[in-house]
Amino acid sequence: MNLADLETPRLVLDADRMEANVARLKGRLASLGVRLRPHVKTCKSIEVARGLVESPAGPITVSTLKEAEQFLEHGVTDILYAVGIAPGKLDHVTDLRRRGADLAVVVDSVEAAKAVAERDAGIPALIEIDCDGHRAGVKPGHPVLLDIAKALARGAKPRGVMTHAGDSYNCRSPEAIADMAEQERGAVVRSAALLRSAGYACPVVSVGSTPTATFARSLEGVTEVRAGVFVFHDLVMAGLGVCRVDDIAVSVLATVIGHQREKGWIVTDGGWMALSRDRGTARQAVDQGYGLVCDEAGRVIGDLVVSDANQEHGIVSRRSGGELDLARYPVGTRLRILPNHACATAAQHDAYHVVRSGTEVVDRWPRFGGW
Amino acid sequence: MNLADLETPRLVLDADRMEANVARLKGRLASLGVRLRPHVKTCKSIEVARGLVESPAGPITVSTLKEAEQFLEHGVTDILYAVGIAPGKLDHVTDLRRRGADLAVVVDSVEAAKAVAERDAGIPALIEIDCDGHRAGVKPGHPVLLDIAKALARGAKPRGVMTHAGDSYNCRSPEAIADMAEQERGAVVRSAALLRSAGYACPVVSVGSTPTATFARSLEGVTEVRAGVFVFHDLVMAGLGVCRVDDIAVSVLATVIGHQREKGWIVTDGGWMALSRDRGTARQAVDQGYGLVCDEAGRVIGDLVVSDANQEHGIVSRRSGGELDLARYPVGTRLRILPNHACATAAQHDAYHVVRSGTEVVDRWPRFGGW
Repeated sequence: MNLADLETPRLVLDADRMEANVARLKGRLASLGVRLRPHVKTCKSIEVARGLVESPAGPITVSTLKEAEQFLEHGVTDILYAVGIAPGKLDHVTDLRRRGADLAVVVDSVEAAKAVAERDAGIPALIEIDCDGHRAGVKPGHPVLLDIAKALARGAKPRGVMTHAGDSYNCRSPEAIADMAEQERGAVVRSAALLRSAGYACPVVSVGSTPTATFARSLEGVTEVRAGVFVFHDLVMAGLGVCRVDDIAVSVLATVIGHQREKGWIVTDGGWMALSRDRGTARQAVDQGYGLVCDEAGRVIGDLVVSDANQEHGIVSRRSGGELDLARYPVGTRLRILPNHACATAAQHDAYHVVRSGTEVVDRWPRFGGW
Repeated sequence: MNLADLETPRLVLDADRMEANVARLKGRLASLGVRLRPHVKTCKSIEVARGLVESPAGPITVSTLKEAEQFLEHGVTDILYAVGIAPGKLDHVTDLRRRGADLAVVVDSVEAAKAVAERDAGIPALIEIDCDGHRAGVKPGHPVLLDIAKALARGAKPRGVMTHAGDSYNCRSPEAIADMAEQERGAVVRSAALLRSAGYACPVVSVGSTPTATFARSLEGVTEVRAGVFVFHDLVMAGLGVCRVDDIAVSVLATVIGHQREKGWIVTDGGWMALSRDRGTARQAVDQGYGLVCDEAGRVIGDLVVSDANQEHGIVSRRSGGELDLARYPVGTRLRILPNHACATAAQHDAYHVVRSGTEVVDRWPRFGGW
């Protein structure tokens, strides 16, 4: 089968690019002497995950219990659920553990730690550290860490610390990202030292984001790296210098359905429902609109971007606003759109159409959503 | 069952509010003497659609052939696919028509009209009119309309004209929306007159958007109105004055998972994956962030909004930036988030949890996605 045989819009996965992306990060982490615990929130696909994990049992990171559920059904047992646990989810966690998952949870307060410990089920828990003021977590090395560990130890199992340098997405250079990686590393290493000095074992010291994993100078003291988007990469990563545009492995296949000649617009059937509403490059030096336009074989076409989007209509024009030879894109022309954010765009689809050597479709891999 | 029994995040549909919204628009269109062809791209649910249609056969409007497929399986046959047809979809259209769908397509160029006519299958087609420079379509009354009708007549069936006043979403007052509705009406009525004067039958004169349907002063000459978001309403509609905040029938149930005390942040498990990346209120007078926060019973809590979002984390703070008594929202507290854009938020979920009288869950209605 060929891409030309697919109805549009569809999600396309370039397996050659994906494999190169995975090999690159794995090689880098191996040279830094640290383990990869891939974040499967990006792919939500067992076929993709199989190319990422050390062994059929994992390890993996998940962002929802639905992901834990789905991957456990495929034999993955070493799972970190990396979003602060809501007490109402502990029955589900206990059930997954009973079914064979070594599922660990995350807490960042005495309140949440108590809820986990009250189960008296030895649920392993990491304490989340806030390394960059971006999201959840305890300040690095803050004394409340000891209160949380103490609360956990009453009926759960403190397993270590974790953090996510979400602010690395706002960095402006590889040097700034490397500095952020050092800040991320320092935050958890310092927190682990505090816990150990108080007598708590701290076997896991976990960091993770694709930018910091790519540019970290050292990961000394860190035991594992969680990263997800590196598998596919996207325009936000390219804008950060984390990958090249030609490394981006996912795209949305769309068809030209019309034109607005006076405006220099091509109208396609790839709207925001297919691309997502993510405008992650809006804050970057090069704003790629709702995505960068390629031909059907995946080659970028000058500065064509999806400049605006309706639910099922994409408007393609030149980023520079310059003139466009619409005759080159008649109704029926097929285009591929590189996404701002791979996690968001992939989530709009229920399958990957896997291509090799440009446009040959070699497989269809299902992906799931929901919670 | 009660909302308290659901794991989070989940999509909640308040059936009482939905029924009132539907009755209100139906009453209005009846008084204007025009038919409703509801747009089911918002709900993508047969259970919701049953409350909207005149009869089990329809009529309905769809934005994807997947919607046509799904609704046809439930006996809906009168279907308008309201996105310009891509030639590669005509096999699918023909197949749906063979299976009993009176499925009409849309074109806005001679090119696309020829592709439809070449099938020589009498496929009914509407010509799209561009009433507001917002998206696709031919300029109202432009002579190319006759060329398109002529191309269609060779093997397809010209059925009339349609337009969508997408720019009504950018209006600032009910008066501006009423003016836009008149512009929308005039665009198709004028185009229909041109076609009729050239001897083409033009039985369908179709307009549609929830704002213009709500404020139109007259729909003379129009035969049907397509609207979708009115079923649920959302914060964008409330910001336009099209509904009240208390009319919004869909929300996302989320749980408090932590706090950042110095920042006055509540952290929840309702991130952008559950809410969508839609920031439709960003351009309005009141920017509601990623959504407006209610208690579990659906009552708005002051000026609490989801001010930022990660994939599975929502950050709740006051829109005013003022102080927030975090002790009132301990870990485990359940909140409901009203969405910016009902179509985008509902699309992130695979089911509606239907409530009556606040928090009593009376049903679970599946919804579908994809193409």
